[in-house]
Amino acid sequence: MKVVIVGSTGYSGIELVRLCEQHPHIEIGALISTSAGGETLGEVYPHLSHVHDSLSEWSLDLIASSGEVVFFATPAGVSSQWVPRLAERGLICIDLSGDFRLTDPGEYRSWYGREPAEPRYLEQAVYGLSEWNREAIREASVVANPGCYPTAALTGLLPLLAENVIDPGTVVIDAKSGVSGAGRSAKVPLLFAEVNENVRPYKVDGHQHIPEIELGCRRFAGVDLRVSFTPHLIPMSRGICCTVYAALTGGVTTDDIQALYREHYDEAPFVRLRGPGQWPQTKDVTGSNFCDIGFHVDERTGRVVVLSVIDNLMKGASGQALQNLNIRMGWPETAGLTGSPVYP
Amino acid sequence: MKVVIVGSTGYSGIELVRLCEQHPHIEIGALISTSAGGETLGEVYPHLSHVHDSLSEWSLDLIASSGEVVFFATPAGVSSQWVPRLAERGLICIDLSGDFRLTDPGEYRSWYGREPAEPRYLEQAVYGLSEWNREAIREASVVANPGCYPTAALTGLLPLLAENVIDPGTVVIDAKSGVSGAGRSAKVPLLFAEVNENVRPYKVDGHQHIPEIELGCRRFAGVDLRVSFTPHLIPMSRGICCTVYAALTGGVTTDDIQALYREHYDEAPFVRLRGPGQWPQTKDVTGSNFCDIGFHVDERTGRVVVLSVIDNLMKGASGQALQNLNIRMGWPETAGLTGSPVYP
Amino acid sequence: MKVVIVGSTGYSGIELVRLCEQHPHIEIGALISTSAGGETLGEVYPHLSHVHDSLSEWSLDLIASSGEVVFFATPAGVSSQWVPRLAERGLICIDLSGDFRLTDPGEYRSWYGREPAEPRYLEQAVYGLSEWNREAIREASVVANPGCYPTAALTGLLPLLAENVIDPGTVVIDAKSGVSGAGRSAKVPLLFAEVNENVRPYKVDGHQHIPEIELGCRRFAGVDLRVSFTPHLIPMSRGICCTVYAALTGGVTTDDIQALYREHYDEAPFVRLRGPGQWPQTKDVTGSNFCDIGFHVDERTGRVVVLSVIDNLMKGASGQALQNLNIRMGWPETAGLTGSPVYP
Amino acid sequence: MKVVIVGSTGYSGIELVRLCEQHPHIEIGALISTSAGGETLGEVYPHLSHVHDSLSEWSLDLIASSGEVVFFATPAGVSSQWVPRLAERGLICIDLSGDFRLTDPGEYRSWYGREPAEPRYLEQAVYGLSEWNREAIREASVVANPGCYPTAALTGLLPLLAENVIDPGTVVIDAKSGVSGAGRSAKVPLLFAEVNENVRPYKVDGHQHIPEIELGCRRFAGVDLRVSFTPHLIPMSRGICCTVYAALTGGVTTDDIQALYREHYDEAPFVRLRGPGQWPQTKDVTGSNFCDIGFHVDERTGRVVVLSVIDNLMKGASGQALQNLNIRMGWPETAGLTGSPVYP
Repeated sequence: MKVVIVGSTGYSGIELVRLCEQHPHIEIGALISTSAGGETLGEVYPHLSHVHDSLSEWSLDLIASSGEVVFFATPAGVSSQWVPRLAERGLICIDLSGDFRLTDPGEYRSWYGREPAEPRYLEQAVYGLSEWNREAIREASVVANPGCYPTAALTGLLPLLAENVIDPGTVVIDAKSGVSGAGRSAKVPLLFAEVNENVRPYKVDGHQHIPEIELGCRRFAGVDLRVSFTPHLIPMSRGICCTVYAALTGGVTTDDIQALYREHYDEAPFVRLRGPGQWPQTKDVTGSNFCDIGFHVDERTGRVVVLSVIDNLMKGASGQALQNLNIRMGWPETAGLTGSPVYP
Repeated sequence: MKVVIVGSTGYSGIELVRLCEQHPHIEIGALISTSAGGETLGEVYPHLSHVHDSLSEWSLDLIASSGEVVFFATPAGVSSQWVPRLAERGLICIDLSGDFRLTDPGEYRSWYGREPAEPRYLEQAVYGLSEWNREAIREASVVANPGCYPTAALTGLLPLLAENVIDPGTVVIDAKSGVSGAGRSAKVPLLFAEVNENVRPYKVDGHQHIPEIELGCRRFAGVDLRVSFTPHLIPMSRGICCTVYAALTGGVTTDDIQALYREHYDEAPFVRLRGPGQWPQTKDVTGSNFCDIGFHVDERTGRVVVLSVIDNLMKGASGQALQNLNIRMGWPETAGLTGSPVYP
Repeated sequence: MKVVIVGSTGYSGIELVRLCEQHPHIEIGALISTSAGGETLGEVYPHLSHVHDSLSEWSLDLIASSGEVVFFATPAGVSSQWVPRLAERGLICIDLSGDFRLTDPGEYRSWYGREPAEPRYLEQAVYGLSEWNREAIREASVVANPGCYPTAALTGLLPLLAENVIDPGTVVIDAKSGVSGAGRSAKVPLLFAEVNENVRPYKVDGHQHIPEIELGCRRFAGVDLRVSFTPHLIPMSRGICCTVYAALTGGVTTDDIQALYREHYDEAPFVRLRGPGQWPQTKDVTGSNFCDIGFHVDERTGRVVVLSVIDNLMKGASGQALQNLNIRMGWPETAGLTGSPVYP
Repeated sequence: MKVVIVGSTGYSGIELVRLCEQHPHIEIGALISTSAGGETLGEVYPHLSHVHDSLSEWSLDLIASSGEVVFFATPAGVSSQWVPRLAERGLICIDLSGDFRLTDPGEYRSWYGREPAEPRYLEQAVYGLSEWNREAIREASVVANPGCYPTAALTGLLPLLAENVIDPGTVVIDAKSGVSGAGRSAKVPLLFAEVNENVRPYKVDGHQHIPEIELGCRRFAGVDLRVSFTPHLIPMSRGICCTVYAALTGGVTTDDIQALYREHYDEAPFVRLRGPGQWPQTKDVTGSNFCDIGFHVDERTGRVVVLSVIDNLMKGASGQALQNLNIRMGWPETAGLTGSPVYP
């Protein structure tokens, strides 16, 4: 099946290219780049010079005629305008930006500082947290691919919320991220000399992934809550680690938690659970679509600590986008995503 | 004044050498190294080959006769045995290990898995969190220099606890540390290829700095509490960032918090406060003795988030040790510690 | 076809596991580990916990009965003893160590400081520089897989030597390597805090890859020479960059060089040539089996500068080992090695 | 004495600030910044928020009236215009840019692609390679502070050239540099995600430091030569390692080389020589003004390999600038520069 990638020269875009090249059922129909249309992919990214694809300027007609699926790996504010028109032409749209993740237009406006897509499209889009929304994804015309932080946070948090073993009013999410999540934009704070040998907290007063996390809790666990969420930039290229803290409801044991995670994820090929006393590190998932989860029940404080790690460009973006397409098409969920983590 | 450094070939040890070389009132009397006694410092560390000091084997008599002050930059279990005997000979002892930080022998035994020092010495030792204990340090015979995590955590947390603006039962401390804190020991998890491109949570089920933090809260804020504390290893050499979360008591505003930090630290030359909307990064303090603090009052959740950053080898170890000696001797608190952070 | 990996818990070993898992014609018959026999792979490397293989103790019989091919990813001095006995039992042996790369026993003894394999086996082993020795590899019983530095250096150098466009007496090879090449051994100089923010030249007085490079020049270009070779350790996990300098013979132009590289590598799926004015970086090949080559004809000095980059664990070790097995078996040379570089 | 720093918000600029703050005879008179005039230093660089200096807009009169010395830490093309006018007003000018390093206007034009300063000023400027030009620096009105690569390369190379122990026609300089040398400019190739896990050769076809190195060889060794020079960007913030290769003239021994380095640098407080079999690493000098040198006489090839390492922002820029001012003023050459390297 032919796919089109819009925004193909960003980091998520080239990760999609890498994955599509390995996918048994996918062929690249067109690569769209507003910044480098007319060049070849290898001119922009010599590491892909063996992929003999050329980059095309933006053109709705070209996209519509080049594939049955279109991925948007674009900044906020792009897909909101174009996805509806492509969906209407019958393309399956998988949007890696935040434009279709929030259903409430006012919330989008307030957190993103932009005009949202039309409400009916917001409602129609299916939130693509693969493990929690497979049924809806199977029928989706538009998939709102989750953000990197919400993917890691929700995958760790939802089983606990859904089973009522934590107090929703006490959830704290402390996140550490590699810098590729910020994209390939020439900004001083992203320079090597600024990021290296540094931990930098940012958007401490409010990151746009907060409402997405909270909406996910409502959607999939039926719980209304407000989370504390603090992201930190870490000197690495890939990887997110979410450390989630919450007060346990009475009498919950390590075995209980272990059991409920098993129950929720036993059929999930990309979620790997660690046993008690073992915690994942981001390097355990680099280059792969895995989300690894570990936890600790702290009897001293009555809290549980959950560690959830992903590769932000894979399970946090392009990998999950492919996983969602696999689900949508009825292909094996792991098709094209069977590569092991690259270590070290 | 002559000082002796025991454990002078560890990372804290050579940081003490670097600082003592720059200090206007200090001369190195002897450098003790059990692993490299007999060699010169430059043979072990060529970066210090201009410092023409030789390393001596361990000898109680040599130490006692070579200086008026002795620093122990040794692993747990060493100073507990020797500090009492050197203190009895009249030396001022500044212990950078954890051996004299906990006053309760049982607690030491349980968290460190070793036999503690004799109780009367544990009681006699003065906890060297400089900004909070100056009076006692001035008279101290033995200074228990604080751990790196407790220094960052307590400096950020104590003003809030002392002023009763947070609920002590809700304190969560999420810590990120560079790898030099683990010392210069040849272990697989500390290899470059393992640490690079990685965030690794560790000791999630209990780090020995937890009772030290909690004791600090009792000592300096009179508050009994149990904190959640999760350390993470980050791919950098130096730096600690503690992100502290706590529920605010009713009606506390940004201005209140700003005011109480100002009040507590206005006379503290090494604590720098950030204004609202600004948060420190670890790179802001690298190579210096500063502790930089920022915070955010989150009205959505009713929590405050505090960011506290230090250089773990400076304010988190050797820098604070010198600061404590300055206080003890009545020298200017900043003597030998005026170097600005090295950036980038 | 079933393969056995000896030394499966080293970095080259787990890279072989990763590649074999993706290979269309290969199944893992046994994983041998002297340090972790009896454990599962996931216990040693949680990132591979989805690979449900257990590690076996060393056993010649087990190896011989578990596969038709055996990879040795072991330190020097192991395969020299065992490869002959496994080859005699009919297994195809691919040795990633240096034990069969030098044909002269005295040379091995002098550079490796150990006893070499029996001379008749040294002679029988086929040097597995894939692009230059395909014919012999097709018939090989024992493949001596090249070292990481020789692979990068020879791939860049051989076309120039073979075509007599450089003066062999002037060859200087300056190499920069990531730290994974040193293996997963707990040594102080490999600690993160030592490697980070550092360039460290090492073995400046003689690296054991020198005779291998010189022998390669004799074997494939018929040229006897002595090269200067200086390796440098760089703060990165993967990647080698060899910068090769040599005086040009008269009248050689950029076009000539470009043409001769093209000629030599046009059929080589893993060698990618850069055009004039473009030079490869190690990141262009990370995670892949590519060797990227660029060059500059410097008219000011009459020298050519060649840049040759590889991923040391892939084309410099496990990737080329698989490539050699592909050649040996008559499979497509790229089977199981089609993954694009992982970027960034 | 009061000094003015022009370009004070670049990396060399803030390094000058850091050094001036520690210098016993220097006071900052004014900090000039075209990009941030009107702000405080702490607003641009919070790590310097304890330095209560404000940044001033560019003003010739302000500069002339605020100090007796002016440092230009500006990009190429700025000081060429302003240094003459400030020198005429009697200020000592120390220019960290390349504008006064080449005496031949045509050469400047060709390598820098800009108009040079007036020839009479080019001639009048004294090249500030401290160890080789002390006499002239003592009288200088304008000091052309050397480039980072030329400092490392020439310090290692000049003793060999001056003593005629190498063949000048065979000099190859392979350089590895941290990224801070490229300044704080928002460019994609300097992003963390691009530099991390990467070695990137650049300007392989000609770097503007080549004529400076060659002129240095003429100036201080009286040798006319053309060097091969290839710079590589390395994933670290600070540090340069120059690896220099040259053919030895007949009969030169390790002892000879050791002796001639000793002779040349015995009085040089910032040059540290390694003994045979030992080579410096960049980390040995981080944060300090040292240049560490090691070498190897390779009897196999008849070449010598010299390793020369510096901190590019210190001995390669701001440190040497202060050293030159110390020489110019008759202060101790090490004044304000006695800090040991920061390790690790």
